[in-house]
Amino acid sequence: MGIGRWIQGLGMVGFAVLLCAAGASAQEQPRLNLVPLPASLQSGSGSLRIDSSFSVALTGRTEARLDHAVQRFLRQLSRQTALSISAKTSNKPTLTVHTDHASKEVQELGEDESYTLSIAADGAKIEASTPLGAMHGLQTFLQLVEVSPDGFAAPAVTIQDKPRFPWRGLMIDVGRHFIPLDILKRNLDGLEAVKMNVFHWHLSEDQGFRAESKKFPKLHTLGSDGLYYTQEEIRDLIAYARDRGIRIVPEFDMPGHSTAWFVGYPELASGPGPYAIERKWGVFDPAMDLTSEKTYKFLDEFVGEMTKLFPDYYFHIGGDEVNGKQWDANPKIQEFRKSHNFATNEALQAYFSERIQKIVTKHGKAVVGWDEVFIPGVPKDIVIQSWRGQESLAKAAAQGYHGILSNGYYLDLGWSTARHYAVDPTSGPAANLTPEQQRLILGGESCMWVEYVNAENIDSRIWPRNAAIAERLWSPQNVADVASMYARLHAVSAQLEWLGLTHRTYYPQMLRRIAGPGASPDELSALRTLADVVEPVKDYTREATATAEPTSATPLNRVVDAVPLESDVARRFGELVDKFISSSCHDAEAAARLRAQLSAWRDNDARLQPLMQHSFLVKEVTATSQDLSSLAAAGLAALDFGAKGGAAPEDWKTQQLAVIEQIEKPKSQLLVMPALAIRKLVEAVVAGGSCAASK
Amino acid sequence: MGIGRWIQGLGMVGFAVLLCAAGASAQEQPRLNLVPLPASLQSGSGSLRIDSSFSVALTGRTEARLDHAVQRFLRQLSRQTALSISAKTSNKPTLTVHTDHASKEVQELGEDESYTLSIAADGAKIEASTPLGAMHGLQTFLQLVEVSPDGFAAPAVTIQDKPRFPWRGLMIDVGRHFIPLDILKRNLDGLEAVKMNVFHWHLSEDQGFRAESKKFPKLHTLGSDGLYYTQEEIRDLIAYARDRGIRIVPEFDMPGHSTAWFVGYPELASGPGPYAIERKWGVFDPAMDLTSEKTYKFLDEFVGEMTKLFPDYYFHIGGDEVNGKQWDANPKIQEFRKSHNFATNEALQAYFSERIQKIVTKHGKAVVGWDEVFIPGVPKDIVIQSWRGQESLAKAAAQGYHGILSNGYYLDLGWSTARHYAVDPTSGPAANLTPEQQRLILGGESCMWVEYVNAENIDSRIWPRNAAIAERLWSPQNVADVASMYARLHAVSAQLEWLGLTHRTYYPQMLRRIAGPGASPDELSALRTLADVVEPVKDYTREATATAEPTSATPLNRVVDAVPLESDVARRFGELVDKFISSSCHDAEAAARLRAQLSAWRDNDARLQPLMQHSFLVKEVTATSQDLSSLAAAGLAALDFGAKGGAAPEDWKTQQLAVIEQIEKPKSQLLVMPALAIRKLVEAVVAGGSCAASK
Repeated sequence: MGIGRWIQGLGMVGFAVLLCAAGASAQEQPRLNLVPLPASLQSGSGSLRIDSSFSVALTGRTEARLDHAVQRFLRQLSRQTALSISAKTSNKPTLTVHTDHASKEVQELGEDESYTLSIAADGAKIEASTPLGAMHGLQTFLQLVEVSPDGFAAPAVTIQDKPRFPWRGLMIDVGRHFIPLDILKRNLDGLEAVKMNVFHWHLSEDQGFRAESKKFPKLHTLGSDGLYYTQEEIRDLIAYARDRGIRIVPEFDMPGHSTAWFVGYPELASGPGPYAIERKWGVFDPAMDLTSEKTYKFLDEFVGEMTKLFPDYYFHIGGDEVNGKQWDANPKIQEFRKSHNFATNEALQAYFSERIQKIVTKHGKAVVGWDEVFIPGVPKDIVIQSWRGQESLAKAAAQGYHGILSNGYYLDLGWSTARHYAVDPTSGPAANLTPEQQRLILGGESCMWVEYVNAENIDSRIWPRNAAIAERLWSPQNVADVASMYARLHAVSAQLEWLGLTHRTYYPQMLRRIAGPGASPDELSALRTLADVVEPVKDYTREATATAEPTSATPLNRVVDAVPLESDVARRFGELVDKFISSSCHDAEAAARLRAQLSAWRDNDARLQPLMQHSFLVKEVTATSQDLSSLAAAGLAALDFGAKGGAAPEDWKTQQLAVIEQIEKPKSQLLVMPALAIRKLVEAVVAGGSCAASK
Repeated sequence: MGIGRWIQGLGMVGFAVLLCAAGASAQEQPRLNLVPLPASLQSGSGSLRIDSSFSVALTGRTEARLDHAVQRFLRQLSRQTALSISAKTSNKPTLTVHTDHASKEVQELGEDESYTLSIAADGAKIEASTPLGAMHGLQTFLQLVEVSPDGFAAPAVTIQDKPRFPWRGLMIDVGRHFIPLDILKRNLDGLEAVKMNVFHWHLSEDQGFRAESKKFPKLHTLGSDGLYYTQEEIRDLIAYARDRGIRIVPEFDMPGHSTAWFVGYPELASGPGPYAIERKWGVFDPAMDLTSEKTYKFLDEFVGEMTKLFPDYYFHIGGDEVNGKQWDANPKIQEFRKSHNFATNEALQAYFSERIQKIVTKHGKAVVGWDEVFIPGVPKDIVIQSWRGQESLAKAAAQGYHGILSNGYYLDLGWSTARHYAVDPTSGPAANLTPEQQRLILGGESCMWVEYVNAENIDSRIWPRNAAIAERLWSPQNVADVASMYARLHAVSAQLEWLGLTHRTYYPQMLRRIAGPGASPDELSALRTLADVVEPVKDYTREATATAEPTSATPLNRVVDAVPLESDVARRFGELVDKFISSSCHDAEAAARLRAQLSAWRDNDARLQPLMQHSFLVKEVTATSQDLSSLAAAGLAALDFGAKGGAAPEDWKTQQLAVIEQIEKPKSQLLVMPALAIRKLVEAVVAGGSCAASK
């Protein structure tokens, strides 16, 4: 390691990684496929060979959790390599893991998670203050294992690492679609791999109450269609998470988003019953009767039960999106509002928040809530989870309140990974805070809302994109190179597969369902070609573009449900177009590749015809398929102009851009992603464009 | 159904299915993707719509097993369609399942498995004598569900069906590599889907004793590396199998293949101990001491325990491949042989077989054994499982013995599906038997030996090919159209995925491991292009071509472990070449497709170079990759001669064939499968060839 160099401020490491990824001689310096990138890293020389003799020794503080972590590490190493690696003791272990002292019995926010990892040709060592850091080091090691010309190996390297933020979480909504326990488990495995340390379990919604309550059993028996987690299963998942250095923060959303509570306990509601489990999506009227002491007595007992079940110090009470209609319609509540001089429904909710917070505090826990629970004057141990935006987070911090950012990290909105990656909890309005105020921003949570997500495709909606958010929350702020991020994400995605995550395998299988079992390989290939370059509509437009009102029973079997949220093929095509244009359209190799790709797209609509006639699920994307062909034809015409070296006529451009504009309108809730790059091509070959100008 | 037509003798249905598969107007007559094809089938008009209102009613005899079958059916229907279909009662059920009477408490060989299934636009009905038939009918229904232009549907059809053979099994060797219970379960699901009714569980081998014995615990504690099934798990799997109409026949192989027994109980062996679990593959010397009464006392107690655990009437005692070396080397055994006037070691084994058979009979069961246990004069209730060939089966039947065929159904040998499919239990030597003698042939079993198979790739070594063997054992003998079989196999393969079988998903994942997580999509695509057209060496040549002696610890992570045993791409390429040549090389569209495919192969070696330099697992296939390029170049040259319309010179042909001959030699234990088709192309364009002659 004598010839290594220290790189501080990992923007530079990102750059180094990118260089390696782009160069053909990547063999000389192993590419480090780390996500998240560590706080500091020094490359050494040589590498540590990984074979079936690999062994691990624990020194210093040991505990069952570390033994489990090592067993898990060896199992994952075996999966990644297919080597028969078994737990064995050795007087010369390949990897030594030294831990100084214990971590807390119940994991706490802000515990020391730092570690150092040094790998040399003759062995490796992890040193950490606590088991949390040791476990992070093991995950870093796994990401470093590469296939080399001589076998599996990990490059010589010295890493000193610690997280930027102490709260790095993923929220999963299990209310709108039930997500079975084994799927949650493999997603926790994924969180461990990318060093996230909070699983926020959104357990109640209008569409389902998912946790067993022994005190109020009608909550789960009548509120869940039988799809809930028993307390035994919940304890099991909590232990599973703790083993992986992950806290579980439960959320029971109130006073709104609570229809499912009222199916069994209509007396809690502000409007007359009876209630049924909600089957549609949106914001609904039912809300708790905040004027009734019976409500608070119920909640006191309920919170008492749940705070015993969930050991974490934080307890999430939701608090979002109360539309106030039931309150407005209830004379008793209006009376209450008047008598208390509450000017608005927000003030009513503030009253409720204060009451529920007192209950939570009484049971020894601290409240987390969505933006709405932040009302000036609430006690300081509350944590605000911002879904509305960075401003509210900054505002809260300015007043001394802790916060975590989720706005910008909503995985269901279909943003590109790059867009999520650019969102920083302390940028924007928070950048003007004092350092002390900035420290009140504890981190962030990505959110997986599941209106259009179910057990079949949830992994693909979370991964690998969530790994980029994990990096944002762990790595130094200046780690921001997008190309490096995508290259490393590609690698970590392959690694996540060995954890059993199905974010890649679900896709061809869903396409085969769409095509029907009798579809030929050629037909399937045509469907795949189209599916590979479309993305679901973004943000909240899926409801708006639906032909029939979607419900929880709507099958998620369409092309829009099958395709990944981000098209890798379209992204790479866009990069190639940029490269071509930046060469003033002189890069012949790029031109040939563009032409081959565009020709395949142009011809694809004809290839897809048999399936369109055969399957209603393919027929649905008829217009999208035609759009891809038309788009490709426009791109080919642009290439032709480019090849001729003259500028394309202005009226041709106008005509093409009109076509592209039509194509950019979503059809079947799908966007044809190469449209932007082809627009660029068209504009490049007219007078004044990058290509025509240079002729 | 008035306009339907009856087709008896399903060779014709096979033909009809083929016609539909090939034609572009397949919409008019739905293609029936049934595997196995039923005994008789009448197409009707119209189809039954499948939506979330789908319901099933059981009438006649009902039992818990039928309820489970319906729940399983609905779950699978939901998976295939992604529709929310829940178990519900309806006064107008979509599908009625009527069962006349119960089947046996312990499933028996030869129970009535027949059923009729009629589907019309307004509903469907299954009628069966027993739950076994009803369950088969449900599986047939699932295979009929197709995606249609208007939604999911099942075509109107009337099917009368029953099996040709009563014993239709799959054997899995769990000794050489342990196969976890959940993987066995999903393979039982696969057996149910293709109407196989026996799971032959090969539980002991030199390399592992896999069943818990409470009487002799050192069998599993010392003989399994801790990898065994508890009796509770075994009972669980038996119940799981029974629920699916599948018998479980356990095999404890003796007196050979028994090293793992001797680790804990060396006193059973014929040679001096101590013994260790065998790590290599092959036939080994250790064999039981057949002269010691202690051996028979042990086996009596052991068989007593296991026959209680396994309820099936049949108990498999193995009996194969005793090399006799330990017997030859043991003076006491030689003495015994002399005193009993046994001329050969075969006679010694016959003595052992007789003794063990009496023990099994005493415990109320009948013996199944491999060829070797068949010695003239053994009692008639024995079943001979023929691994050596059809002759031994015919010979046994001629003498009044029952038999099942496994020779020709060894899934590990890497044969094409077509080759397995052509093997018929009553063809060849058995064709000359009288009808009564032929009836002694009970059916067959495919065999999955796992020297080069583990939990990761076992599904792909069994499926979808096993479905063709299932068809051979179920459908009428004249169902033999290979093209129809492949088309239907492709469809049933997609359906099997919904059972959780990983025979498709494991493959890209293993290729990503081979390439390394950092490989780019282009590099992966180059690896896939090569991998898609190679197959592992066939029969028993893998040992012969190994560079180092393989053991149970040898990682199965190479290209040879990753690729499917049969290349679909090469098979389709071969079909296209045949089509092209049969047009006297005039089919321009075929020529264009061949040229595109060959160009891609020719250029692939260059594309794969970066990975070859990067990964030892890709570097290993360097010669194979060059071979594919050379082969493609030869094919392109042949196409060029064809296009010119003149015959290629004879010396060119000689040169090309010499190149191809070199390419046909396996390298890295891989065969380049398009070699045969390209040889045909070369021969077609020289004087006297199909193409040159017509010029």
